[in-house]
Amino acid sequence: MTEVHTIKPTPEQLAYTFGGQREPIAKINPGDVVRMYTEDCFGGVVRSAADLPTQVCRFPYLNPVTGPFHVNGAEPGDTLALHFVSITPARDWAVSTTFPHFGALTSTSHTATLQPPLEERVWMYDVDVARGVVRYQATRSDFSVELPLDPMHGTVGVAPGAGEARMTIVPDAHGGNLDSPLLRAGTTVYIGVNVDGGMFAIGDGHCRQGAGEVTGVAVEAAMNTVVAVELIKGVYTPWPRFETDTELMSTGSARPLEDAYRISQHDLVGWVGGLTGLDTLDSYQLIGQAGQAPVANVVDANYTMVASVEKAYLPTISVYEDAHARLRETGREYGTE
Amino acid sequence: MTEVHTIKPTPEQLAYTFGGQREPIAKINPGDVVRMYTEDCFGGVVRSAADLPTQVCRFPYLNPVTGPFHVNGAEPGDTLALHFVSITPARDWAVSTTFPHFGALTSTSHTATLQPPLEERVWMYDVDVARGVVRYQATRSDFSVELPLDPMHGTVGVAPGAGEARMTIVPDAHGGNLDSPLLRAGTTVYIGVNVDGGMFAIGDGHCRQGAGEVTGVAVEAAMNTVVAVELIKGVYTPWPRFETDTELMSTGSARPLEDAYRISQHDLVGWVGGLTGLDTLDSYQLIGQAGQAPVANVVDANYTMVASVEKAYLPTISVYEDAHARLRETGREYGTE
Amino acid sequence: MTEVHTIKPTPEQLAYTFGGQREPIAKINPGDVVRMYTEDCFGGVVRSAADLPTQVCRFPYLNPVTGPFHVNGAEPGDTLALHFVSITPARDWAVSTTFPHFGALTSTSHTATLQPPLEERVWMYDVDVARGVVRYQATRSDFSVELPLDPMHGTVGVAPGAGEARMTIVPDAHGGNLDSPLLRAGTTVYIGVNVDGGMFAIGDGHCRQGAGEVTGVAVEAAMNTVVAVELIKGVYTPWPRFETDTELMSTGSARPLEDAYRISQHDLVGWVGGLTGLDTLDSYQLIGQAGQAPVANVVDANYTMVASVEKAYLPTISVYEDAHARLRETGREYGTE
Amino acid sequence: MTEVHTIKPTPEQLAYTFGGQREPIAKINPGDVVRMYTEDCFGGVVRSAADLPTQVCRFPYLNPVTGPFHVNGAEPGDTLALHFVSITPARDWAVSTTFPHFGALTSTSHTATLQPPLEERVWMYDVDVARGVVRYQATRSDFSVELPLDPMHGTVGVAPGAGEARMTIVPDAHGGNLDSPLLRAGTTVYIGVNVDGGMFAIGDGHCRQGAGEVTGVAVEAAMNTVVAVELIKGVYTPWPRFETDTELMSTGSARPLEDAYRISQHDLVGWVGGLTGLDTLDSYQLIGQAGQAPVANVVDANYTMVASVEKAYLPTISVYEDAHARLRETGREYGTE
Repeated sequence: MTEVHTIKPTPEQLAYTFGGQREPIAKINPGDVVRMYTEDCFGGVVRSAADLPTQVCRFPYLNPVTGPFHVNGAEPGDTLALHFVSITPARDWAVSTTFPHFGALTSTSHTATLQPPLEERVWMYDVDVARGVVRYQATRSDFSVELPLDPMHGTVGVAPGAGEARMTIVPDAHGGNLDSPLLRAGTTVYIGVNVDGGMFAIGDGHCRQGAGEVTGVAVEAAMNTVVAVELIKGVYTPWPRFETDTELMSTGSARPLEDAYRISQHDLVGWVGGLTGLDTLDSYQLIGQAGQAPVANVVDANYTMVASVEKAYLPTISVYEDAHARLRETGREYGTE
Repeated sequence: MTEVHTIKPTPEQLAYTFGGQREPIAKINPGDVVRMYTEDCFGGVVRSAADLPTQVCRFPYLNPVTGPFHVNGAEPGDTLALHFVSITPARDWAVSTTFPHFGALTSTSHTATLQPPLEERVWMYDVDVARGVVRYQATRSDFSVELPLDPMHGTVGVAPGAGEARMTIVPDAHGGNLDSPLLRAGTTVYIGVNVDGGMFAIGDGHCRQGAGEVTGVAVEAAMNTVVAVELIKGVYTPWPRFETDTELMSTGSARPLEDAYRISQHDLVGWVGGLTGLDTLDSYQLIGQAGQAPVANVVDANYTMVASVEKAYLPTISVYEDAHARLRETGREYGTE
Repeated sequence: MTEVHTIKPTPEQLAYTFGGQREPIAKINPGDVVRMYTEDCFGGVVRSAADLPTQVCRFPYLNPVTGPFHVNGAEPGDTLALHFVSITPARDWAVSTTFPHFGALTSTSHTATLQPPLEERVWMYDVDVARGVVRYQATRSDFSVELPLDPMHGTVGVAPGAGEARMTIVPDAHGGNLDSPLLRAGTTVYIGVNVDGGMFAIGDGHCRQGAGEVTGVAVEAAMNTVVAVELIKGVYTPWPRFETDTELMSTGSARPLEDAYRISQHDLVGWVGGLTGLDTLDSYQLIGQAGQAPVANVVDANYTMVASVEKAYLPTISVYEDAHARLRETGREYGTE
Repeated sequence: MTEVHTIKPTPEQLAYTFGGQREPIAKINPGDVVRMYTEDCFGGVVRSAADLPTQVCRFPYLNPVTGPFHVNGAEPGDTLALHFVSITPARDWAVSTTFPHFGALTSTSHTATLQPPLEERVWMYDVDVARGVVRYQATRSDFSVELPLDPMHGTVGVAPGAGEARMTIVPDAHGGNLDSPLLRAGTTVYIGVNVDGGMFAIGDGHCRQGAGEVTGVAVEAAMNTVVAVELIKGVYTPWPRFETDTELMSTGSARPLEDAYRISQHDLVGWVGGLTGLDTLDSYQLIGQAGQAPVANVVDANYTMVASVEKAYLPTISVYEDAHARLRETGREYGTE
């Protein structure tokens, strides 16, 4: 029977790594639903144009996540299915910034140059959940425009394997800071379990984000989020995959960006081949003509690409024991707040 | 007054480079319309599963283009506006293949490994223009599916500057083998002029293509294509840009893929800043939240990314002297065959 | 007063991560000397041509290190100086292999292709410490040749910061699997301390290695190694640096390889500028003409480059409080076994 | 019988592309020797700290080469052997600079960021050929140091194939701006012939250069250079190779830098395998332990890596019909000026 867990972490309870020795914030059963609060990537302390992140935030206390959640019965070699039932901004404002030597159109700690950083600047956004918009306001002119609200979570992941612990800002095979706009309500995320309990966590809500998150910072917001959870036993998922009502998607997180593309397309070719019985080259050919490649982020410690294909192009298939359909159903029952 | 040029090159007239000493196939005036035939990337010789490209094609006679067209009055420092009025498959079949050591999921001449190539194989597609579909047929099983027909040109470009000549399979600042599905009917391409006459050429028709062209080969087809041409004097375009009724787009072609992303996003941030009066960081912020990044190719000599933004998010602006609107109008008049 | 610690870990004591909850294998004082045994990267179980690594090794129990060593008084913000007094092969044989989908001339888990892996094969090497050679013997012909013995450690590092734990096979800012042939006797390594005690560890001995470790596997050997340790208080080192009698060296570990180059050169430009009082561009110019860039590895999770400059080109300078000179002296006293 | 050609091009005779319609500056026979003058990369117009390249140079008239030389009898599929007999600075000064948005520690046109460029600055070097030194002088302090004179040519190449013409600043399979310090006197360069006559050209003398040419500009100098030429019929060389008395070397020019590494190591593995009869994996293993990877440039349109192995590690072999030994002998006869 579905249990609903409501979790609002205190500041001290926020987590900053996937993996490591932290105790779970809750233990849940497969089939349960979690209503959680997630703080924004700045820990909620950037609240006006005067709050420069480098002055009000303290490394490494960035990008807090809510979790980890221990899923009873999850063991290495299984797959967690995390379905986003709803993602709702918790405040009527959100924030974006530049951040020194972070982003795609600046040199960085790794694409290191001798140039000074770009100016650090803050943009405040009004958030209107009812109307489904956020308002961009230029800082050096009067220009202002409403953009569609499209809430998503930048960060979702589990504890990595091999005894590793990773900062929440890193995307990799265990998930983490994937920063894909596709992580919106209606999407199911499949992630391979590496440690007992899986230990998933979620954070980094965005009211919306451009492809690649080119400035390095989206429209950052605290979120009230409902997640429905299932466990697929005995099936491992090497890189996070997504499913929606209409699409199957694989991810890859790596540098250079073409390796993220290769990983995601390679996984999708293999996945579709396995589901359909197409031989490898036939599956490659189909994805080659029908596949999409939505860019997630080109700014994080690894860059993330998604490979997707419409289910309509595939024969009738059962994916992960039809977990997505069941989770949709659960979401319909438990989605209202 | 608009002149309509009808060009169907003989095999000997096909071109294989942008730039070089080749005489123009036609001289046209700004405002003219060209109805052209383009051969497929294999020169039309891969016509069945038995026609392996490495056996029936001969390097460097791959990826022929129709052109070059000399645009009267075009001088270095100007911009050509090439508007795709219509792109129609010329045959009721199209073809795709694997090609040894070419594509994103194989080692290549440059991502060189000691592994043998993937098997070379041919896929034949039925093309139904009336119904707007192509049919994928697996080669090792009975699976078959219709995919939407979405005709585009992989290759469009001008002569490069600095005395260079480049194979048509290379995408770069002069255009070339961009392999973006956005090069469909309704799109205007802006390319900077580097030599007198501009010397544009077009080829490599695709009935459709996945994002990144992951196999290296799309659904390749000969095309009957109508292009309307304008010339913008005294304005140079450093990297090809696209405009549709709803979007502005910049391209970048480079390796690694993140540099293609950087070039395209950088160009769009500057372009939008110039059009709107937004300061650089305000424009960067807007693109960061509203911008898209459709992947073109991750297989060619350079990889190509597109950066796009919806015009609806921008204040009322005039782009390239409203060339796109005029070309749309010309297209409506001259688009029927 | 210098204390000499002799450490030969049992198999159960071997470590497979930098960072994490493992207890230190020993606590030492700055100024102490450690005589340690390190097992080879295969845990010593690949001993003949029949011992294929994928059959006799078990992931993630690869690349064991000896440690971690807790250095009393080491705090975040300090720098550890680890001086290799001697590195001596512990056995009269060493081993190399190919490993499926690992190495620079094969597709990998990240540069993912649809090609099968290269054949897994083992090469056994005779090691003659007295004569200073190892013997390469071809597996498919009679060809054989002696190569100079040049012992080094592929892996040396400390616990990373921000609560992270990383597999020992990863090179990054905390050191780890740098796989640089410069990590030989006579070299001092400087690494920034991120956690109390620093928690350094060493492993992955190589009898020799080509630049880039192109096959992914060097001439792997267990080693008897003597290390002299100092602690520089209040000075942090962002990326590992090396010093020899004649050179200063910075490292960078990243992908793509040009970012590893950028990080290492950027660090060296800044370091030399700080030491000499040269302004940034003057230091950049000097390194630009006098700097070298020895390649470490182009196969690991991050690629590693070294930037180096001869001390003879610099004015008389004191580096890290002259730690290298003192450690050389300590090494002369305690280097004999 | 060896003919000696003495060529000092007028400014109008300088070439700026490999390939294209330019007439040869001379026709020579295999076996001949060329004494040539090459102008520096700035065309000789940067002569003091006040001569900023962006003010005194005019794109694309950068990096002039002396040539092209037509080698009688050279046909596509052959290999040219170009042996540097001597490279002598033609003036008692040389020059280096920063150049806006060019170099490894700055954003560039392709690694595009929104940051302003680094300051453009000129460094003048005194050149003392007799003593074999150049003098570095800091611009913002009194520091000065002599560095060894190590003259080399950054640019050597032939006309590319497939009808292409490339700016001289581009390194690729046809050679070009490889910017490797190994292109010094005593080195033989092998390059595949793509057009009748081969059409080689040489330029971009450097008094010395750091690995990677990190600032983008070496110690640039006009040179008096003696080159001995042979032609190997019926053997094609896909990427430029070098030979010295002690080493065999392959090059690769590509982005990202790991692809340049892969190409060069792949070529060397295949080359050594072919010369020695080692099977592919045995050759891979030998290069893996014995190979070096000297970095050439990490700043040009493609990055260039060299893979090298000592001949002493190989069985007695004949390389390119022993062209290097003969060219050394020719050099001894004709090397004096």
